[in-house]
Amino acid sequence: MQSILPVFSILGMIVMFFALTMAVPLGVAWFGQDAALSSWHVGMALTFASGAVMRLLARRHRRELQPRDGIMLVALVWTVLPLFASVPLMVYFRQEGSELSFTDAYFEAMSGLTTTGATVLTGLDLLPPSINLWRCFMQWMGGMGILVLAVAILPMLGMGGSQLFRAEAAGPMKDTKLTPRITETAKGLWSIYCVLSLLCVLAYRLAGMSWYDAWVHMFTTVSLGGLSSYDASFGQFDSPLAEWVCVFFMMVAACNFAMYFVAVRKRSWSRLWSDTESRATVGLLVIASLVVAVLLWLKGTYEDPLHALRMAFFNVVSIATTTGYANTDYAQWPIFAPVLMLMLSGLSTSAGSTGAGIKMVRVIILIKQARREMARLVHPRAVNPVKLGGATVDNNTIFAVLGFMLVYGATIIGLTMVLLATDLDVVTAFTAVVASVNNMGPGLGSVGPAGNFAGLTDFQTWVCTVAMLLGRLEMLTFIVLFTPSFWRK
Amino acid sequence: MQSILPVFSILGMIVMFFALTMAVPLGVAWFGQDAALSSWHVGMALTFASGAVMRLLARRHRRELQPRDGIMLVALVWTVLPLFASVPLMVYFRQEGSELSFTDAYFEAMSGLTTTGATVLTGLDLLPPSINLWRCFMQWMGGMGILVLAVAILPMLGMGGSQLFRAEAAGPMKDTKLTPRITETAKGLWSIYCVLSLLCVLAYRLAGMSWYDAWVHMFTTVSLGGLSSYDASFGQFDSPLAEWVCVFFMMVAACNFAMYFVAVRKRSWSRLWSDTESRATVGLLVIASLVVAVLLWLKGTYEDPLHALRMAFFNVVSIATTTGYANTDYAQWPIFAPVLMLMLSGLSTSAGSTGAGIKMVRVIILIKQARREMARLVHPRAVNPVKLGGATVDNNTIFAVLGFMLVYGATIIGLTMVLLATDLDVVTAFTAVVASVNNMGPGLGSVGPAGNFAGLTDFQTWVCTVAMLLGRLEMLTFIVLFTPSFWRK
Ligand SMILES: [K+]
Ligand SMILES: [K+]
Repeated sequence: MQSILPVFSILGMIVMFFALTMAVPLGVAWFGQDAALSSWHVGMALTFASGAVMRLLARRHRRELQPRDGIMLVALVWTVLPLFASVPLMVYFRQEGSELSFTDAYFEAMSGLTTTGATVLTGLDLLPPSINLWRCFMQWMGGMGILVLAVAILPMLGMGGSQLFRAEAAGPMKDTKLTPRITETAKGLWSIYCVLSLLCVLAYRLAGMSWYDAWVHMFTTVSLGGLSSYDASFGQFDSPLAEWVCVFFMMVAACNFAMYFVAVRKRSWSRLWSDTESRATVGLLVIASLVVAVLLWLKGTYEDPLHALRMAFFNVVSIATTTGYANTDYAQWPIFAPVLMLMLSGLSTSAGSTGAGIKMVRVIILIKQARREMARLVHPRAVNPVKLGGATVDNNTIFAVLGFMLVYGATIIGLTMVLLATDLDVVTAFTAVVASVNNMGPGLGSVGPAGNFAGLTDFQTWVCTVAMLLGRLEMLTFIVLFTPSFWRK
Repeated sequence: MQSILPVFSILGMIVMFFALTMAVPLGVAWFGQDAALSSWHVGMALTFASGAVMRLLARRHRRELQPRDGIMLVALVWTVLPLFASVPLMVYFRQEGSELSFTDAYFEAMSGLTTTGATVLTGLDLLPPSINLWRCFMQWMGGMGILVLAVAILPMLGMGGSQLFRAEAAGPMKDTKLTPRITETAKGLWSIYCVLSLLCVLAYRLAGMSWYDAWVHMFTTVSLGGLSSYDASFGQFDSPLAEWVCVFFMMVAACNFAMYFVAVRKRSWSRLWSDTESRATVGLLVIASLVVAVLLWLKGTYEDPLHALRMAFFNVVSIATTTGYANTDYAQWPIFAPVLMLMLSGLSTSAGSTGAGIKMVRVIILIKQARREMARLVHPRAVNPVKLGGATVDNNTIFAVLGFMLVYGATIIGLTMVLLATDLDVVTAFTAVVASVNNMGPGLGSVGPAGNFAGLTDFQTWVCTVAMLLGRLEMLTFIVLFTPSFWRK
């Protein structure tokens, strides 16, 4: 037990900081005197007090964090914060006399903080502005926010955060050392995130959204989160301009933030186009959108080719970047399109972006590795290392990528089987799991863009909650907690 | 062009030999004077003549085969033989006035020779005995037969067959060198296959089948092929005894034949139980069957627990070993069961068996590799090699296994997307591809155990034909033909 206590000291700190962020919805509620005002008092006080208690109890046990403490902390942060985030939601719904179960509240909070964007709520348009803002603000903090928080705050506390960075950005990312000091990196990524956010708010406002809508949807655009304050999601605005702005910022946010950081530092904009991963990500998004546009036009779903182009780009980029907005029930499109979009949601985001899923850099490494294997089949003695961006990718990295793929596939199949055991239909079960693991949001079947996750039983909801968590922690980080070697001295 | 000619010389030889095997259905047709007699004359003559012409044309171009010739030959054998195998089928159906398209005939032959056992034919019970026998006999030759043929005949012709053996048994199998001389290995495996076949015929006869039924179903049991001469498949017999005999032989055939070979040579039966892969295969089959039996009983599908046990064991073992018999429409079972069975069909056969799919040895290596990756996440500097049967599995083998998994997954997803583009529903498309790639047979949806592949369009049928071929050639062997490095000097 003692060995976990130093972790709780940091966790308490993070929980206290999280409580402070509730000042944002509190301010909105106070300013607009909306129905949820007292929920924010309760939520903020409870969260801050809990954090303080954790910190106090563990105050005698501070020490340098070990790698496994880092992994433990990451897992704890992502399971404990949704707990506190769900408190104001539950308090508000109880006040209104329409019970929101703990299962659903925790799901909603997890969906927010993991930037998944699946929801169990309907009648979003009627919720108090502060509640909708909180749902979306959680995504903004969640996506890159909590990553940056963890890498930036910990080192400032004098504790090495590099192992955390490694755990969070499992796989290839860990090897692109941007600056010697992780704090500086974190601050750099944070700055870029903020600049991007401001540009996005302004663009939305200029495209005709109200300031409130612009902020709320910016939160869920740059974080690739996809929650909305409207049941109709982006369909509410019915504005081609707003949708194209959204498409642009989703594409920008799906690229590696480290690339922007390096480009800014070296004042070299040509670096943007020379980044293999980002080029592949954007390329895939554009090609997939064009393919779907042509399909929709040929099959007569939309007769006007320009309309087909708009619908295809918005929905394909939204799903493929794991954002999850919709402006129509694309599940009604020829079945090839929605399934393609769902599959792409595992691929077309970059490591170091706010997206989830497999990530493009892994796909590139996998394709190069597959080519190498084929060459080896023909010329058994040939040596041809996998190269990326000029550097050789070592075997350990390739193993890590392949291991990730394996666990990723096994997780999706395993959780789908669990849902099938509850007699959910195959399409709903499989797509709910894929959409959750990829932190994307809507699936197909009864969890499709026209439905939501409210129809699931409590048990099924928990399976999806676990899937979101596994996806956000890139599987390994979480699963490693259950391996014996983790607990061995 | 010239560099391919030596391959055609061998191919001609194999085609001529294949023509000779048509003597078996010819004999049956002649003995029973059935309606297909003349089809066999045509088919045999055409096949033999074609083989002879190939051999003659290429006779000046014999030389030592290179690895890439081996790969080319394997691919050619598996695409050309179904061509000739389909001839008697087409001739017979044309005689009867009920056209069988080339697409369907080639599909049926490919399904036979790859031991898939999917069918586009209905009214099997009314077909001449020689036609049904041919369908099933192709499976017997296909499964292990053609593998053994290729490794045994080529070395006897004075040409090194080891690269072929390598290509056919891609992945881990290639590293278990049984005897220095591949010919001896091939003969050994052939002998075991024949002994097993004879035992199976006798057991079926003793279980009450007619001699004809016993032979025909033996052909498709020990080859894990799954074709039947009855539309009702094993449901026709409604005999628990015959089903348990079948379960036993499917389990025996799902284990590594090389293990039997070694056990016989060393006269050590304890080796059978010490083989990690076979133990895991049989263990998984038994556990999965028990799980499904309990599920069927609990959910009230079958009220009698013994009946549930019989139904579960027969259908689970049949699907999981990639055989594909059914004695009921198990698609009506609680959805967890049929999907579990379909998933297992990729896992629960051994390398060196007549089954297809991922194969258990790869699963074991993958699990060990995944464990190693997790340990590495916690203790980055720890060295712990993957071990199997006491020996260390080298990195190249692990890469080959991981590469296989990757291509396997990509193939299934890619072909499913192609079928979806033809507006097939998701469940039918996905399961048709999985059932074809795993050389298993029935899927779910409209290609489920109660349906068959006759409802597919020509294009969809060809996609499944390609899927069967890719599965049988373990993907890489085929795909490597389309890589530039294969054709480079
Ligand atoms: K999302
Ligand atoms: K089969």
